[in-house]
Amino acid sequence: MVISQSPITDNGAVVVNTSGRPNAAHRPVPLGAVRFTDEFLAPRLRINHDVTIPSQFAHLEDTNRLRNFQRAAGDVEAPFEGIYFNDSDVYKWMEAAAWSLATEPDAALQAMLDDALQEVKDAQDSDGYLNTYFTFERAAERYSNLRDMHELYCAGHLLQAAVAHHRATGSSAFLQVAIRLADHLWDTFGPGKQPGAPGHEEVEMALVELFRDTGDDRYLRLADSFLSNRGLKPPLVGGSPYHQDHLPFRELNHVTGHAVRALYLTCGAADVVAETGEAALLNALEAQWSNFHAKRQYVTGGAGARYEGEAFGDDYELPNDRAYAETCAAIASVMWNWRMLALDGDARFADDLETALYNGVLSGLSLDGQAYFYQNPLADRGHHRRQPWFGCACCPPNIARLLASLPGYLASTSEDGVWIHLYAANESRVSLSDGNSATVTVQTEYPWDGEVTLTLAPEQPAPFVLHLRIPAWCADASVRVNGEPVEAHPTPGDYFPLRRTWKTGDTVTLTLPMPVTLLAAHPHTANTGRVTLRRGPLVYCIEAADHPGVDVWDLQLPASAEWATEARPDLLGGVTVLKTTGILCDLQGWDDALYRPAHTPPAQTRETPLTAIPYYAWANRDPGPMQVWIPLA
Amino acid sequence: MVISQSPITDNGAVVVNTSGRPNAAHRPVPLGAVRFTDEFLAPRLRINHDVTIPSQFAHLEDTNRLRNFQRAAGDVEAPFEGIYFNDSDVYKWMEAAAWSLATEPDAALQAMLDDALQEVKDAQDSDGYLNTYFTFERAAERYSNLRDMHELYCAGHLLQAAVAHHRATGSSAFLQVAIRLADHLWDTFGPGKQPGAPGHEEVEMALVELFRDTGDDRYLRLADSFLSNRGLKPPLVGGSPYHQDHLPFRELNHVTGHAVRALYLTCGAADVVAETGEAALLNALEAQWSNFHAKRQYVTGGAGARYEGEAFGDDYELPNDRAYAETCAAIASVMWNWRMLALDGDARFADDLETALYNGVLSGLSLDGQAYFYQNPLADRGHHRRQPWFGCACCPPNIARLLASLPGYLASTSEDGVWIHLYAANESRVSLSDGNSATVTVQTEYPWDGEVTLTLAPEQPAPFVLHLRIPAWCADASVRVNGEPVEAHPTPGDYFPLRRTWKTGDTVTLTLPMPVTLLAAHPHTANTGRVTLRRGPLVYCIEAADHPGVDVWDLQLPASAEWATEARPDLLGGVTVLKTTGILCDLQGWDDALYRPAHTPPAQTRETPLTAIPYYAWANRDPGPMQVWIPLA
Repeated sequence: MVISQSPITDNGAVVVNTSGRPNAAHRPVPLGAVRFTDEFLAPRLRINHDVTIPSQFAHLEDTNRLRNFQRAAGDVEAPFEGIYFNDSDVYKWMEAAAWSLATEPDAALQAMLDDALQEVKDAQDSDGYLNTYFTFERAAERYSNLRDMHELYCAGHLLQAAVAHHRATGSSAFLQVAIRLADHLWDTFGPGKQPGAPGHEEVEMALVELFRDTGDDRYLRLADSFLSNRGLKPPLVGGSPYHQDHLPFRELNHVTGHAVRALYLTCGAADVVAETGEAALLNALEAQWSNFHAKRQYVTGGAGARYEGEAFGDDYELPNDRAYAETCAAIASVMWNWRMLALDGDARFADDLETALYNGVLSGLSLDGQAYFYQNPLADRGHHRRQPWFGCACCPPNIARLLASLPGYLASTSEDGVWIHLYAANESRVSLSDGNSATVTVQTEYPWDGEVTLTLAPEQPAPFVLHLRIPAWCADASVRVNGEPVEAHPTPGDYFPLRRTWKTGDTVTLTLPMPVTLLAAHPHTANTGRVTLRRGPLVYCIEAADHPGVDVWDLQLPASAEWATEARPDLLGGVTVLKTTGILCDLQGWDDALYRPAHTPPAQTRETPLTAIPYYAWANRDPGPMQVWIPLA
Repeated sequence: MVISQSPITDNGAVVVNTSGRPNAAHRPVPLGAVRFTDEFLAPRLRINHDVTIPSQFAHLEDTNRLRNFQRAAGDVEAPFEGIYFNDSDVYKWMEAAAWSLATEPDAALQAMLDDALQEVKDAQDSDGYLNTYFTFERAAERYSNLRDMHELYCAGHLLQAAVAHHRATGSSAFLQVAIRLADHLWDTFGPGKQPGAPGHEEVEMALVELFRDTGDDRYLRLADSFLSNRGLKPPLVGGSPYHQDHLPFRELNHVTGHAVRALYLTCGAADVVAETGEAALLNALEAQWSNFHAKRQYVTGGAGARYEGEAFGDDYELPNDRAYAETCAAIASVMWNWRMLALDGDARFADDLETALYNGVLSGLSLDGQAYFYQNPLADRGHHRRQPWFGCACCPPNIARLLASLPGYLASTSEDGVWIHLYAANESRVSLSDGNSATVTVQTEYPWDGEVTLTLAPEQPAPFVLHLRIPAWCADASVRVNGEPVEAHPTPGDYFPLRRTWKTGDTVTLTLPMPVTLLAAHPHTANTGRVTLRRGPLVYCIEAADHPGVDVWDLQLPASAEWATEARPDLLGGVTVLKTTGILCDLQGWDDALYRPAHTPPAQTRETPLTAIPYYAWANRDPGPMQVWIPLA
């Protein structure tokens, strides 16, 4: 059992990304109250802490992102270097470092973070303004181009990092910087001042978090006004769908434009709903979520179909090879679904959260924690490889901050009890509404096996409901309490409530069978005649490295294929692979033809072993073709 | 029989886009020597002349594209208006007007053209430079950014228009402008001067044409040097594949980057080969053509898969709904294939030319001749509609100039006789190598029917070979001469030579059966499990207007469908439609699902009438879904 290292905020919990206020049914579990003991997520947090976060700090230094702050403080004479929104990478890294310290105190990391914080503090203007690009010769241009210049986006990331820092370390040093900046925003964009909205959303959720951390409702009101200032006539930020500025947000019934912006905006709106309970806003969110879920989301949870504009496409426009599916957008989907889930505990949000996290997010990071995908295609010829850093480096620190905050996503509490959203071996201490707390110990080999055992240890026998998430992908879940089968049949895609007076030593065993499932895609997508493989929360793909001498784009699946699963601790950090006999097509007759009569005698085929690996693990071996959607024979 | 209205150039023919010099086996037939009598192409030339060309002149005036020339001449005080390469639209329109005058003298059109020419002449600097953007305050920036500013592109279009004007009208007034500009180019970029290459290719083929028209080989040498200046280290125009500047052209074995640029470049290279016979250049062209043909071309002949960069994608990357397939790129494909065909008379080039012309080019223009597609997708939900004009208006005058020059694409001559490439009812006078000429009268209802009757009338009985193109799509062609079957079996995708001494009244009847053919696409494309329909040279699609109450995206085709053809003179300007019984899928179970287990019971289906129309004619009725690639049931 781990005691939180973090201060307790006014709602009784260290808040991770959402609130415990009245309009949200759920309260988060503090990061420091969770300790992973599993072999899937825990190693990822370990690598994040040991490798990813320190190596990113080196990149921030090497690319002079940190020097830009020293320059702004007047400490060095040098030109601003890099892209005008590079400050945000520093803030996201600081957020990652802060969350990491919440679960694993580390003097060296604390020192790095302290150094960065000192540089940020020193760079802040006396009036609270802070953006290292708009300094000296560019100071006169501040807030003159909200559409393109990302000042509010950078400010938002500062605020988020500062709130994380406050919650994780107890220090208010960074928070004071954030408050000064937020007050400057209020003075600039508050009631009766310059009408404003950010071209790249992000500041909305940050302001709500700052409101939660400080209780100052000006920040909530400012977040709401930024939200309400979209889609005006005349428009404030260009009026295009790219910027989600063509319609008022409350009238928008689909996700559109730049995917990361669109989903950061929905995060901010959900945060506002959590505080205000506004029905119109919630209705718009529900409509946008339904459109995203049913028409514009990759099977991996990836978001954003188009390279042009890094944007959502039309309904069902989900190309495989040219999927944009930016890592940041999948992260934003996790964040948005988490907020929606917190509002009312509807399991469909947890399903999408899990899909995005285990597939479209994790694919963004190499297994060694040192290389990143910006785009996450669902088919490739072997050219798309992770990179150690980017000029526009939004994704690397974004994945670092999400991984560092992952312990907060496992469970939440409500008035009537405890909700388990994600399954991973861990020990958590959860607060109950009567002021007591309970330790929940989870043992499982999830996501490789669906047997989950929870052992409860309340401080004293306590009546509460244990809500177990039954994933939508699991048709035949069953539950035992202290070894005795529970008669009621759990519903897939819902929470299964176990109501009783729990005492120390009680065990609950949830069995989630994980057959290999072939998924088909909506007939309006480009995946007619193809299937993909899912087992448990994981989407699988086929990759060249497992098929020497075979082009995996030439493999087909018999509809009646029989599947074997094989645990391979030696492979890709330890995975369970799926094996069957596939059909290999000889494409010789296609050598110099792109189109030919359909009645041409079909290609020669032969049976061949087929091995599928989890999608998140692709491109960690020798380059070669990969695909997620496999033609049916 | 029509006598050419045009002057005779030094190779004995009015040259359309290619030469009759030694390294090209073929000589073109003068535009003025051809008169369409058919009911497919002739009405398109009529609309082009009556509606398209005059309405485009009005757009050039309304958008101040012409005023930019008056401004440059100092005749009006006004700012430059529009995009910096708008001059090129004026030149392309002038080329269209000139070619149109070659086949149909028209005083009103001649007056419009004369007015435009006067304005162009007046805008030329005393040193020969001519670009209305780089005048006055921007004059100092001339040729300072060849990569982005399209000066050489605009110059190329001026040269092409001037050559067309010279050939069509006999006047050298425009040609003198072109010569002064070309001499200025030579003085600027010739040997020992500024190393140059255009960011947007076009000037290469224009310079070769000017060489053909004037005999001044400096222009050919300059074209070759622009070609050779690509892919240098360090690069002259950025070094990216987008600009075809990452590799020397002679080492490039695929089509890449901005599709129109890539294919204008291949046109220029083919023109250089026609004059120099350089083997390395020809080898590169063959490799690039093979890549284009077998891996990067839409079934409609469309070119360029990606919106981002208006560019070619990877091999087999050919999305349907997001096909870019710019009208200009399909036109460029026609131009390139024509040049390749002229080199050696290989029928594969004529096949691709015909496919692009009858499908991907014609789709770019509405049936009324007043609205244009920039992109030509192969699937749509009903949102993509032709526009009357564009800010970047490259496509409208491009299609006008191609249509106006179409009579030149039907046939060519070689040392041994006459080659018929495209089938359309017409009367042509062709020159024979012995100095005689022959009239060839073609009767056919092509592309609706494959029966083609040619009646020959040589001035005197003449021994020559009549080469008839047997399209690759036609498996069972047969030929009769004066009613007697020819025993030899024509080979699809080749020319069928008829060698004899022809006398007046001889008839040749070519029968090209046109069954409805289902085409499959290479398994590495996104069209697994789908087919498209081709009949003769035409690719078909299914469109909402023929299927009330049915979403054509929900239609499937039984592999064994029986097809009926129906001539519909009342429909879409007169088309033959394809009819069968299709399968309509009820997608109700998919209402809010994007992915679901493949073993889900299949959707309810019912039989329903299915009507396919030629792809070129889509989007001329009420908006609604369309698709070219139809799932097989």
